[in-house]
Amino acid sequence: MRKIHVIGIGAGDPDQLTLQAVRALRSTDVFFLLDKGEVKSDLTQLRRDMLDTHIPERTYRLVEARDPERDRSAGGAAYSPAVDDWRSARADIYERLIVEELGEEESGAFLVWGDPALYDSTLGILEEVLLRGTVAFEYDVVPGISSVSALVARHRTGLNRVARPVQITTGRRLAEGFPEGVDDVVVMLDARQTFRQYADQDIDIYWGAYLGTPDEILASGPIAEAAPRIERLRAEARERKGWIMDTYLLRRNPKGR
Amino acid sequence: MRKIHVIGIGAGDPDQLTLQAVRALRSTDVFFLLDKGEVKSDLTQLRRDMLDTHIPERTYRLVEARDPERDRSAGGAAYSPAVDDWRSARADIYERLIVEELGEEESGAFLVWGDPALYDSTLGILEEVLLRGTVAFEYDVVPGISSVSALVARHRTGLNRVARPVQITTGRRLAEGFPEGVDDVVVMLDARQTFRQYADQDIDIYWGAYLGTPDEILASGPIAEAAPRIERLRAEARERKGWIMDTYLLRRNPKGR
Ligand SMILES: C[S@@+](CC[C@H](N)C(=O)[O-])C[C@H]1O[C@@H](n2cnc3c(N)ncnc32)[C@H](O)[C@@H]1O
Ligand SMILES: C[S@@+](CC[C@H](N)C(=O)[O-])C[C@H]1O[C@@H](n2cnc3c(N)ncnc32)[C@H](O)[C@@H]1O
Repeated sequence: MRKIHVIGIGAGDPDQLTLQAVRALRSTDVFFLLDKGEVKSDLTQLRRDMLDTHIPERTYRLVEARDPERDRSAGGAAYSPAVDDWRSARADIYERLIVEELGEEESGAFLVWGDPALYDSTLGILEEVLLRGTVAFEYDVVPGISSVSALVARHRTGLNRVARPVQITTGRRLAEGFPEGVDDVVVMLDARQTFRQYADQDIDIYWGAYLGTPDEILASGPIAEAAPRIERLRAEARERKGWIMDTYLLRRNPKGR
Repeated sequence: MRKIHVIGIGAGDPDQLTLQAVRALRSTDVFFLLDKGEVKSDLTQLRRDMLDTHIPERTYRLVEARDPERDRSAGGAAYSPAVDDWRSARADIYERLIVEELGEEESGAFLVWGDPALYDSTLGILEEVLLRGTVAFEYDVVPGISSVSALVARHRTGLNRVARPVQITTGRRLAEGFPEGVDDVVVMLDARQTFRQYADQDIDIYWGAYLGTPDEILASGPIAEAAPRIERLRAEARERKGWIMDTYLLRRNPKGR
């Protein structure tokens, strides 16, 4: 039976691999590296470096493929038909990779940034491939340090306050309003710096970009004061590198309980 | 200057240590092991085993102390004066440990279950000790695989659905009502199996106890059918071991988007 590992590799710091992930890497015959034809070549390189470090014997095959970019022009709705098309196009690719590149007795792996459980579609796509019934395989998931954990560790703060909840959401959702019933909110996938919308509120922000990499930038403080500073840092970094990945925690009523 | 590492050691599987955590362990002179005088001696043993595995040379000192149990009888309020007293009693202990047991040029470490960012008070207590100004130290945080990540990895599912938020909350909060604005909710610190309150709703539950340990138990399914099963598993396990640690994800309207 074909085996597949979905391996969370941490958000950027190669030392944030777990021992379990290293073991899974070392038991893999074929790595599927998907990229979006992106400028984020540092990230592609980082994955190769991890393989070089942990499998110096190079006892594996590397299969690269292009991951179709999602049609974001389709617009406003949080979930649109474009997402379905995109998912099914990706399932086609994953299915083909597994059928053509992975021997019946081999194990393959997909390397996922951060934790495969957060805003990543690999698990959903593998389930879709299995549902189609054209190829059988077993798979397991190796959890990873998410950018969320990396963010708050670097800021030496918790996600939640004592006995209180925390929500993890997207920039697009945050644009629709501050989530109800929580005062601690982590925002991912925000290309628009939606935090600016809340700059007049009693909120502390903890922001991080390129977490865990040599380019890491951190900034925090009361949002009124920190927001313009983060905007500047973000614009400079984006200009310099050509791309940016950032995440932040908003803590409303920071002095309160 | 004294240095302190707050090290996330994963939720139970020693292989879920990160390479960064192993490095931090190996650079530590003094480990502070706090325990609540509890029956959970498997957990205390697990920490010792980690040290034995990763620092076989035993080039460290081990300082054990009793962590005062919080007065939970103080009742209903999510945040009560009892929490303040408890926190300050703990700050007294941590302060004393750092002053008396850690040399000026040494580094100490607190080992925290899961990720120090989730429902753990170590960071808050260290900040309180620093605020008192009686002893100076630097500290850093090593993120860990939380029980939340471990749970969903074992169930091979995501925390959030595409473009949707996820909330992490407590059993006590869940008892007050299903959180607003989210359909995916992870529940921790639930001694009362609050999920039973929602057994008549269109919810899937993904439950796990003793995650990552040899005693791990998993169960999942539509809540109406799974809740009684989990109740039974939980009661048996608790009876057998004398204690239980469990976490679960509730996914409302599981077929919907
Ligand atoms: C498609 S999601 C994947 C998240 C990933 N599975 C995780 O656990 O971190 C991508 C988003 O994660 C966040 N992110 C991922 N890596 C990051 C990093 N190194 N620094 C800051 N943010 C990061 C950003 O918010 C980005 O928009
Ligand atoms: C005080 S909190 C600490 C959480 C920890 N910092 C983490 O990241 O997982 C304790 C709660 O975490 C959850 N938990 C911790 N370890 C667990 C395990 N091995 N299996 C299941 N649940 C666990 C349970 O909900 C428990 O009530």
